[in-house]
Order: sequence, then C-alpha cells, then structure tokens
Amino acid sequence: MGQDFEDFRFQKENWPAIKPTAPFGKAPFLEIDGKMVHQSTAITRYLGKEAGLAGSNNWEDLQIDIAVDTLHDFRQAVGGYWYETDEAIKEKKKGVLLNETAPFFLQKYDELVKANGGYVANGKLSWGDLYFIGISDYLNKMLGFDIFEKYENLRQVRDNVVGLPKIKEWIAKRPESEL
Amino acid sequence: MGQDFEDFRFQKENWPAIKPTAPFGKAPFLEIDGKMVHQSTAITRYLGKEAGLAGSNNWEDLQIDIAVDTLHDFRQAVGGYWYETDEAIKEKKKGVLLNETAPFFLQKYDELVKANGGYVANGKLSWGDLYFIGISDYLNKMLGFDIFEKYENLRQVRDNVVGLPKIKEWIAKRPESEL
Repeated sequence: MGQDFEDFRFQKENWPAIKPTAPFGKAPFLEIDGKMVHQSTAITRYLGKEAGLAGSNNWEDLQIDIAVDTLHDFRQAVGGYWYETDEAIKEKKKGVLLNETAPFFLQKYDELVKANGGYVANGKLSWGDLYFIGISDYLNKMLGFDIFEKYENLRQVRDNVVGLPKIKEWIAKRPESEL
Repeated sequence: MGQDFEDFRFQKENWPAIKPTAPFGKAPFLEIDGKMVHQSTAITRYLGKEAGLAGSNNWEDLQIDIAVDTLHDFRQAVGGYWYETDEAIKEKKKGVLLNETAPFFLQKYDELVKANGGYVANGKLSWGDLYFIGISDYLNKMLGFDIFEKYENLRQVRDNVVGLPKIKEWIAKRPESEL
C-alpha cells in the first residue's frame, strides 16, 4: 500500500458515453501500465496480492476467496431487491431479504469473523477485509440499517480496516460520491 | 490432475435435508482432509492452483480471474431468465437475452479466446478453460442453442479441454445427471 493511482469517477449521465469503451460494457475497470483490466473482485485480488495482503499459501487464499464470494452473493441478493423496478415485487423481496436472507447471512458471517479474530479469513488482515469494508457503505444503504451496529464481530473488521493509517488517510481525503 | 475424489451428487428432493449442513446453506461444497469448503469458483481456483493450472504470476492469474468472472456474470444473466417464475417476465427476459445480452457477450468472449489462441487467458491452458467447459452444457441448455456451433473460437476451447486424456476419461465414465 503506497502505490500512486488516479481515482477516476464518473457521473451517471456520462455512463452511456463511457460504456462502449469498457471491456464487456461494464464498470469498474482499471488501467495498469496502459493495459485495461476489469471485474472488481479479480482486480481487488490482484492488487491485494501485489500489496502483500493475500494468504500465505493456496489454502489461505481459498479461505479469503470463499469469504469474498460469499459476501458477493449476499451483495447480489441485496441488489436484487434494491434494483427491482416493479414496486409490488420489490416490497415482497424486501420482506424476504430483511426477515430471512439478511439475518441468516449476517449472523453466519459474524460467526465466521468471530472465529477469525475480527477478520474475514485466516485470523489476519487480508484483501478480503478491505473488500468487505469497501462495499459496506453500499450494503448499509441498500439494507436500510447499519450492519455494524448490530453485529459486533463485523464491527471489529471495520475497526481493524479503518484503523490502518493509509486507509484512514484516504477516507479523510477521498471525494464524496453518491452511493 | 490425478487426485482421487468422491463425486457426491444428490437428487433435488434430498436438498432440504442437506441444506442445513451446507456452509451458508448453499451447494456445491467440498470436503478436503476433513475440512469443509464452499463457493464453486473459489474451489475451482484452488484446485486449479494445486493441479498446476494457474497463471505463472499475479498478472496471469488476474487474466484468468477476469475471464472466469466475466463468464460468471453471463451465467447469472442467463440464469436470471431461466429461473424466472413469472411467465410474462420470463418471455421478456428471453427476448433481451437472446437478442442482446447473449450475442454481445458471446461475440466478445469469442474474440477474447481468439486473441488467446483457443484459451480463455494467457494463450495457454488454465483452470479458466476447465471452468468454462464445465458450465457450458448448462449454459447451452438454458440458452436453448449450442454456443460451440456458432462460435468457432469457443469451440476451440472445448476441443482443447475435452482432448485432455484425463478429462476424456472422466467424461466417458461420469454418471448421468439431470442438468
């Protein structure tokens, strides 16, 4: 951590003009040494390895990948409700999400983190923790409640991540974006 | 490749009994040396690394991960249509999928494979190719057409994978399963 980068953010109304230049028509993407790469999880994993935040062996990497993909599934379930355009269906999805999917997942994830001493995998900091905290504001917004208030072990992950000096510095200076 | 394993398949009607024993309530999962792991992509990546089918460095691994996650997104788009329970919505989704999403994706993926000499990444065999061919029967079934008939570079991946002696052997002896 300490690599220079340009944080390129675009407004919703500019997306139609950018989309045709995006690999497979999707954001986010990243240019590294003139080469364009995409897929947020793949990029986060790559940057994590480069920054020394991967596991110590294949088994540890597997545990991080499991923690991240499980979270990704949950994010999609939450998004499936949030982006539903039919109001009646959205209401129904909201009920299932808030009464079943979210409590089930968050309880289990909290247990996973507890077993890992406040991290998502291997009992130590990894790019998986950064991934989780990176999407947590977005999750909280869609869910309509603060997961860190209710789940103390998840809160521990947040405290571990936002307590990192470089992360703290970034959060203080980053531009505001609409979530 | 050459590791012994037990291929445990269950029937749909037995899932409710198995589900509570599954990590985060989902299949598939794998037991390795008495430890349970889940998340299909994470498991495939791990087994791929163990079998020497990963990239030669972080950058190559990133290219495999991108190819796999892009395919995963497509699989989800196809599944979003296939598993839709409202017939009217399903019909509408089918139109978008067959006229827009699928041709756009398959054309781009075919170009990606062409640029990689018949593989999904790095111009050589990796676990990404096995992942692609592993889900291709399922994709073809949901799409209602054979992607390998229409896209010659994708066909090349299939030929490269099913031509591997150990894979050929497995395909010949594996049990039939309902897709």
